[in-house]
Amino acid sequence: MPDWSSPGGLVRLRLDVAYDGAAFHGWARQPGLRSVQAELEGALRAVLRVPIQVPVRVAAAGRTDAGVHATGQVCHADVPLTAWAAQGRARGGDRQPGVAPSDAPEQGTGPAVRRRLNGVLAPDLRMRGVTVAPAGFDARWSASWRRYEYLVADTPSAQDPRTRGHVLWHPRPLDVAAMDRAARPFAGEHDFAAFCRARPDASTVRTVHELSWRRSAPGEPGGDGPAVFAIRADAFCHSMVRSLVGAFLAVGDRRWPVERPEQLLRAGQRVPAIATAAPHGLTLVEVGYPPPADLAGQARRARRWRGPARGRV
Amino acid sequence: MPDWSSPGGLVRLRLDVAYDGAAFHGWARQPGLRSVQAELEGALRAVLRVPIQVPVRVAAAGRTDAGVHATGQVCHADVPLTAWAAQGRARGGDRQPGVAPSDAPEQGTGPAVRRRLNGVLAPDLRMRGVTVAPAGFDARWSASWRRYEYLVADTPSAQDPRTRGHVLWHPRPLDVAAMDRAARPFAGEHDFAAFCRARPDASTVRTVHELSWRRSAPGEPGGDGPAVFAIRADAFCHSMVRSLVGAFLAVGDRRWPVERPEQLLRAGQRVPAIATAAPHGLTLVEVGYPPPADLAGQARRARRWRGPARGRV
Repeated sequence: MPDWSSPGGLVRLRLDVAYDGAAFHGWARQPGLRSVQAELEGALRAVLRVPIQVPVRVAAAGRTDAGVHATGQVCHADVPLTAWAAQGRARGGDRQPGVAPSDAPEQGTGPAVRRRLNGVLAPDLRMRGVTVAPAGFDARWSASWRRYEYLVADTPSAQDPRTRGHVLWHPRPLDVAAMDRAARPFAGEHDFAAFCRARPDASTVRTVHELSWRRSAPGEPGGDGPAVFAIRADAFCHSMVRSLVGAFLAVGDRRWPVERPEQLLRAGQRVPAIATAAPHGLTLVEVGYPPPADLAGQARRARRWRGPARGRV
Repeated sequence: MPDWSSPGGLVRLRLDVAYDGAAFHGWARQPGLRSVQAELEGALRAVLRVPIQVPVRVAAAGRTDAGVHATGQVCHADVPLTAWAAQGRARGGDRQPGVAPSDAPEQGTGPAVRRRLNGVLAPDLRMRGVTVAPAGFDARWSASWRRYEYLVADTPSAQDPRTRGHVLWHPRPLDVAAMDRAARPFAGEHDFAAFCRARPDASTVRTVHELSWRRSAPGEPGGDGPAVFAIRADAFCHSMVRSLVGAFLAVGDRRWPVERPEQLLRAGQRVPAIATAAPHGLTLVEVGYPPPADLAGQARRARRWRGPARGRV
């Protein structure tokens, strides 16, 4: 029997994943509940025919909450090299002409495994890419930033029943320009304690690289599109994006003055006045990584700075 | 008791409607099945408190098939003027200052009734606008054109689980430029018998004002968006758009040469080779009407040309 536990026996895969979060109890595996993590692990085990005694663990860049979607989730999993290589051989006629046999398994195995995983996975969970990860890659700890979007339809013409599963319907018209003004002071490094669910042993300091509110292009002629909140940060603490959205919505429909969210940030204490916006408007759209040479260094720095426990969004 | 049957006792409303077709058995009322028409009629009756002995009938510009969506459906309904006027009075403090009392009911009643209808309707059916229709307006017969869109995701990056309810997932990559070339000869007036479900007593001649295939803007960074088929015509016979899409998909994934759809059009006979594309990729996005002075004339001409039976899409 091969030694599955030795590093030489494993290959690390990068998995690019998209999902509709409606029917998942979030990213993280939980007994008796449907989760993205458990479904990915089960599909990988089935497609790669990993023996039952070998654990398959999938780690994600963004551990999304129940109901939150992803179009650009990035994960990694360590799988037995023999199982991976067997998929390359199983491709048969799928192999591209002109590719040297020694290169072929890596070259074409990823797309073949991606197709097989999509054949096993439910339609609300899609594998967009399967590749052998570069050295030092850790989907969670190597990531240098995450980008989320939150969509809000506030007018009858922006409320498209086809997209109601990932667009929040807000009952009052929003002043998107005021929301964008309220958001600007959040750029940069801040302690987001007022907008995070408290965890005693974890830092709530995060760096926001950019954030904005804008009105999207109309989906239909003459209609106004949904309002789009985009935020890119090194990382997010638990419920941070949805708490920020809740505060900006209060500015947008004139319940709060434009300055109030920034005042709450400065005060640094979580207050009941901040409503957490519903999860279904939120999507993890992109994760950024440094160049290959800095993957391991980035992971070391992130673990030191944010570890051990980093919250979910 | 007022004379509900007299024209003086009724007001014709224009209703702008959007729906997710997944859970409807199409537009048309059918015993025991959920339909858009029956839900709209029930909601109008409830909100306007129309007495049970007065019929409420809603007519639509596009009688969409089961599973087909709409963002720009246009309908009309004749309702008792007294019931409409009562909604205006019920608005109370909602009335705008500075509006003369005699103008007020028409000015603000539409938005109030729209809000009340949306309070009664399920989330997959939305009222986008309620207005008093201009003289001569008939949602179906006055319409001078309808525009439909069909969405197809053919690459892993275009397959977004959040939008899988209104985007067809095609398993092979599509040559959108070839599909667009195949579509061009369909512009203008043609007998679409090869692409219509036959009805012995109805014309299958239609005029296509414009049609195209294009690749939509990517939804995600680095991704390719879905392929979009847009078609605008005076009217459509039953299953016409979906049959055209089926033919163009065969061109797009190279099962057919580019010329084949046009050859089938010229042959004028429905053939089994034309697969009808799935309904969930199709959306009625817009309906066009002539200027108010020509509404009645357009209705007369359309009835003469296409009546009595016009198919569903």
